[in-house]
Amino acid sequence: MKVAIMLYDGITALDAIGPYDVFAATLKCEVKFVAKKKGLIQLDSHMGYLHADYSFSEVTSADILVVPGCCPPNYKNSMNDEETLQWIRHIHETTKWTTSVCTGSLILSAAGLLQGAVATTHWGSFELLQSLGTIPTEERVVRQGKIVTAAGVSSGIDMALQLVAWELGEDRSKGVQLILEYDPQPPFDSGSPKKAPALLVEQIRGRLQEFAEREPRV
Amino acid sequence: MKVAIMLYDGITALDAIGPYDVFAATLKCEVKFVAKKKGLIQLDSHMGYLHADYSFSEVTSADILVVPGCCPPNYKNSMNDEETLQWIRHIHETTKWTTSVCTGSLILSAAGLLQGAVATTHWGSFELLQSLGTIPTEERVVRQGKIVTAAGVSSGIDMALQLVAWELGEDRSKGVQLILEYDPQPPFDSGSPKKAPALLVEQIRGRLQEFAEREPRV
Repeated sequence: MKVAIMLYDGITALDAIGPYDVFAATLKCEVKFVAKKKGLIQLDSHMGYLHADYSFSEVTSADILVVPGCCPPNYKNSMNDEETLQWIRHIHETTKWTTSVCTGSLILSAAGLLQGAVATTHWGSFELLQSLGTIPTEERVVRQGKIVTAAGVSSGIDMALQLVAWELGEDRSKGVQLILEYDPQPPFDSGSPKKAPALLVEQIRGRLQEFAEREPRV
Repeated sequence: MKVAIMLYDGITALDAIGPYDVFAATLKCEVKFVAKKKGLIQLDSHMGYLHADYSFSEVTSADILVVPGCCPPNYKNSMNDEETLQWIRHIHETTKWTTSVCTGSLILSAAGLLQGAVATTHWGSFELLQSLGTIPTEERVVRQGKIVTAAGVSSGIDMALQLVAWELGEDRSKGVQLILEYDPQPPFDSGSPKKAPALLVEQIRGRLQEFAEREPRV
């Protein structure tokens, strides 16, 4: 199974690496990290890099496309770049599954793939997703036709396990979960706005909103 | 807070990127990816790279050291490399916390930091950890003095959230969990040998054992 993970400067690493390691652990997927230009890809923290081994022109099809997200407002660069949007639309024509993690759905929406569709994104970006003509929903993994969107950052692991189950069977997916020892035991139960303390949710919402109104730093 | 994440060829990306994105999301940590030689670091899948921005000689202290794991038998290169072990011992003298994810604890043990200590590793490497003079335990995050070891691959996220709580407070850790939307919903409950189907556990144990007996491919 051919998996293309799109990279771009300002990306959140875990959005890409969560799904990557799920697909890699199947031993049945050829995963390619793809960007407009190959080479080092700066992370949103400005404290490290991922690496794109392929340029858009070198990858013309995929069974699964993954568009990871990023810290606001870094998605703006991809949303406003016609070459990126064209590549996504072209790959989408060839996929069995077109997917996003976190704010990656904003980029899918900008590419015109989620008009009037139900999708999710990071909880802090629901209004922006809605303003693009997409209907936000609070589920963690949302399937609409062949498009699957996942919620914030870490949700890409859950989404990829679901895709492996659909494509390669439940046993393979359970095996991958076991290899990755994905038996989550966070010290707190604060991973969604419904579960976290209300004051904390509002503080972080405010900070994300401030970031969103800036210009991309990358 | 200064965090050094050690990289080496053959590493499992999520072991490093899980903790990285937790520390990065605090906005209070300076994270450095460090390797024997800086530059591209091949992943265990041979399908991508991480990037070391610093060489061992450029990083001489850290508040938190993270030694990620890898697919067997890739840890052998680090376990047999005196320069790597010396660097770990030296940084360990400066840390508040010395940590590992997955089979990274084999490397800490090879460096002499876990003799007679209780620690964890990937469930498939308990016997190897024991053969090095360390006492394996099945908890997901194990603290022994200032050394904290985590179980397989994805457990580094839980460990890093715990470290953030200890160092920067529970509210900061809850906020990071919310930013990463770490509200896990795997489609199955198969993430540990106690929970996965017994036949699957034995199949994967056998495959990991085969890998462990090979020579490193990197």
